[in-house]
Amino acid sequence: MLHANNHLVIMAGGIGSRFWPMSTAEKPKQFIDVLGVGRSLMQLTYDRFKGITKPESVWVVTNKKYVDLVHEQLPEIPRENILSEPCRRNTAPCIAYVSWRIKKNDPKANIVVTPSDHIVTNEAEFRRVIANSLKFTSETDAILTLGMKPTRPETGYGYIQADLSVPSVRNKEMFRVDQFREKPDLETAKRYISQNNFFWNAGIFIWNVSTIVNAFRIYQPGIARIFEGVMDVLGTSEEQAAIDKVYPECEGISVDYAIMEKAEEIFVCPSDFGWSDLGTWGSLHVQLQHDLYGNAVIGSNVQLFDSKNCIVHTADERKVVVQGLDGYIVAEKDGTLLICKLADEQRIKQFSGEG
Amino acid sequence: MLHANNHLVIMAGGIGSRFWPMSTAEKPKQFIDVLGVGRSLMQLTYDRFKGITKPESVWVVTNKKYVDLVHEQLPEIPRENILSEPCRRNTAPCIAYVSWRIKKNDPKANIVVTPSDHIVTNEAEFRRVIANSLKFTSETDAILTLGMKPTRPETGYGYIQADLSVPSVRNKEMFRVDQFREKPDLETAKRYISQNNFFWNAGIFIWNVSTIVNAFRIYQPGIARIFEGVMDVLGTSEEQAAIDKVYPECEGISVDYAIMEKAEEIFVCPSDFGWSDLGTWGSLHVQLQHDLYGNAVIGSNVQLFDSKNCIVHTADERKVVVQGLDGYIVAEKDGTLLICKLADEQRIKQFSGEG
Repeated sequence: MLHANNHLVIMAGGIGSRFWPMSTAEKPKQFIDVLGVGRSLMQLTYDRFKGITKPESVWVVTNKKYVDLVHEQLPEIPRENILSEPCRRNTAPCIAYVSWRIKKNDPKANIVVTPSDHIVTNEAEFRRVIANSLKFTSETDAILTLGMKPTRPETGYGYIQADLSVPSVRNKEMFRVDQFREKPDLETAKRYISQNNFFWNAGIFIWNVSTIVNAFRIYQPGIARIFEGVMDVLGTSEEQAAIDKVYPECEGISVDYAIMEKAEEIFVCPSDFGWSDLGTWGSLHVQLQHDLYGNAVIGSNVQLFDSKNCIVHTADERKVVVQGLDGYIVAEKDGTLLICKLADEQRIKQFSGEG
Repeated sequence: MLHANNHLVIMAGGIGSRFWPMSTAEKPKQFIDVLGVGRSLMQLTYDRFKGITKPESVWVVTNKKYVDLVHEQLPEIPRENILSEPCRRNTAPCIAYVSWRIKKNDPKANIVVTPSDHIVTNEAEFRRVIANSLKFTSETDAILTLGMKPTRPETGYGYIQADLSVPSVRNKEMFRVDQFREKPDLETAKRYISQNNFFWNAGIFIWNVSTIVNAFRIYQPGIARIFEGVMDVLGTSEEQAAIDKVYPECEGISVDYAIMEKAEEIFVCPSDFGWSDLGTWGSLHVQLQHDLYGNAVIGSNVQLFDSKNCIVHTADERKVVVQGLDGYIVAEKDGTLLICKLADEQRIKQFSGEG
């Protein structure tokens, strides 16, 4: 399964403002041990790919202020593989930067791009899907995305509409994408999941480096030109200065808009490996272990009385006693405390002053 | 009003377990700035007597582990006026100890004994009552207690039944006590307050030193004998060693049982100066300022949304956001957090593990 040309790109520039105060601009969600397992979400993401990519073929793109944090949490990967964005420009420039950077090292690279703050509960199946996906993109010029089998009419995700009539001749698990669909309203989402050809877009992409670089050249020539222009200095001591200069010139645009919705050779691999983007306290609550009353607790010194359907998240050493709550978030971090109804968690950005 | 023979005794040995985690065995309620005014309850108690007693006539009796804390919070009073109890023996031995100690210094002492953790909202009236009380006990051998005019059928206090038919010939505000009554049930309490001769026992006593010492000799000869026995070393370098040896031999008994319910010359001064013992979170909630929704907040960085009838108490620097709570205590101290329904606050001792 390990192949010398396999590369992993972890996008770790998000700020996780919906999880305040657990997640803050100083230390966002992906750098936190959200699940209470002793590893941050980014570390768990890295761990999932062990044996698929070598450490020196793992790349992390993040905001400049998190570079030290990434290095601290992933000491196995070379420092120069941590690419520093001088400013936030959404996912397309981020992916373009790392793609040109990898191309310089390994023109035959076969790349998985993944968010840093999602979780997977069936890791064996995940690894099987990833291995099969990498095989597919090593043999084709496909742009491949993983489509999560939906389990509810979620309005918080984009959907991928697949043409399931005929699989790829190269690989029976891969299907052409009919259309990418933006976050739907509830009625539309219900219609989507009543069909069997709609999948959640998890933001996990697989392609070989020539394919994605060519796609940028065709669909985003402005961005492509910027990275062509600095190609010579990538991987040299002048890289950071050049990037700091040109990166702000990139249009801030998501890879979905920039490439996926425009390109023609797009495939989806319908997948079912227990994925969650942990995008809300509610989805975290679902993923954590519960007591008999539906309470989920992270923290070693938390006591609950007369409480149900709560999620309590606190640093290890804190003593927390909760009595008489139903359906609340109680989150404590570095001297900041939030108590909020789970049903009202969309207001958290307002509370944090960081939203 | 200041008289050289006036003495103040502050009893500061309590452990305040009902206010956990704000109040802990390490730093109980009386040493905490419960009201958020910049002074602890003990300091506020001391402040109320300024101009009535000189600092060198203020005495604090406390457990040995709080002596340094008292010294730190009341640097004005001589260190040797902080009397150290080697163990908890309720109020009678505490009052006996300080009475013999004061007697050694000032046989003409006229003494107010007060708890350290109560509050008074009408300080001018309080000072008038105290001055009048000290005048009365300087002229008589009365044991005087202040009776708080009750405002509700409280079942958490003892009551004093007064004979209001004839005031003392010496002082028209002083009346004989008919009987001390233990904490009543609700029906009894309602009956008490429907009459006009029942008052709350606030644990504030005024007497001259001969009166109280004689009362101990008559009604508690065992305790009296113990302090007579160490009289010679009181106020010397041998005091502490002697007290550490004999204090544990005292019976653990309240001054109410030991003296008040037995003595004959007991007077009560009906008083109305906005007193609260702050014995519960509920009574603290009542005393604090409220917002329009009945929320009371101590802490400089607390935000409430969609919440009412809550009390939030936290250290100054903590950021706290509370959303969607009605009728809860939120208290945070030194890394320990309590969230509890106000209506269930009697369970707090159970939560703390200190009760």
